[in-house]
Amino acid sequence: MTTTLTPPRIRPKSFTYRTNVGEVKGRTGTLTGEGKPPIWVSSPPEFKGETGHWTPEDFFVASIEVCLMLTFVGLAEKRGLSFGTYESSSEGLLEWDQISYHFTRVIVAPVITLFDQESFATAREVLAKAHDTCLVANSVKCDVIVEPLFRLE
Amino acid sequence: MTTTLTPPRIRPKSFTYRTNVGEVKGRTGTLTGEGKPPIWVSSPPEFKGETGHWTPEDFFVASIEVCLMLTFVGLAEKRGLSFGTYESSSEGLLEWDQISYHFTRVIVAPVITLFDQESFATAREVLAKAHDTCLVANSVKCDVIVEPLFRLE
Repeated sequence: MTTTLTPPRIRPKSFTYRTNVGEVKGRTGTLTGEGKPPIWVSSPPEFKGETGHWTPEDFFVASIEVCLMLTFVGLAEKRGLSFGTYESSSEGLLEWDQISYHFTRVIVAPVITLFDQESFATAREVLAKAHDTCLVANSVKCDVIVEPLFRLE
Repeated sequence: MTTTLTPPRIRPKSFTYRTNVGEVKGRTGTLTGEGKPPIWVSSPPEFKGETGHWTPEDFFVASIEVCLMLTFVGLAEKRGLSFGTYESSSEGLLEWDQISYHFTRVIVAPVITLFDQESFATAREVLAKAHDTCLVANSVKCDVIVEPLFRLE
């Protein structure tokens, strides 16, 4: 009897992501990344910044929200799950403890449309796996809560 | 003899930050926030995305980098520290463990110009305090390393 060993799946061990900050003036500045459109950044108004600009607090919440979406899309493709549209809204809660502020909770609420009733169970499974393996969610200390809504297209 | 009690400093207990994702097509989509310019987002090329777009990995690194800058600016103002320019570059390391990827380290390297030799010690203190109290750095699991360079303007 011979035993067939599955060759181990080779994964690159690491990736590096680089960003830059410049043009700092008061509580504003520019975020740049190679080959990417610059983004004007600021403190939020409650921390003496200007309204209408992206803030580090927004980026923290967005990094989780966008990562969940992209992880879902990748896993749906692998599982052969077709879906119509994917939209989400997110809400991050920043709380003060004795020493400093920190995020205690981020809620992500995706609304995903499906083409048939049979896809609902698979879509739930895929989203649950996306939640478990979302690399940004796995890199933060706060609770990440996913509150999905699946709709028939 | 009368004792004067300093009234406790009132701080709001919490703030909420909201973002949205939509227009999902393949591994791209749009990040929106009320009153803010939309940002086109994608997976990075190594996760089958398109080049030239902001990614969740970028936002994770940027949220720390921008938060450190804004915390430094706020504390410098409080301490009466004048500085010329503030620029920084950052590098986030994403590593694979047994189950999923996660960020293990973010290095932020600010270059700050100062007007006189006497400001160097204060600037170091202010940056160290910014590192300790940076609300995004306090919300992530990975190591946040700050490698500053102070220069005489």
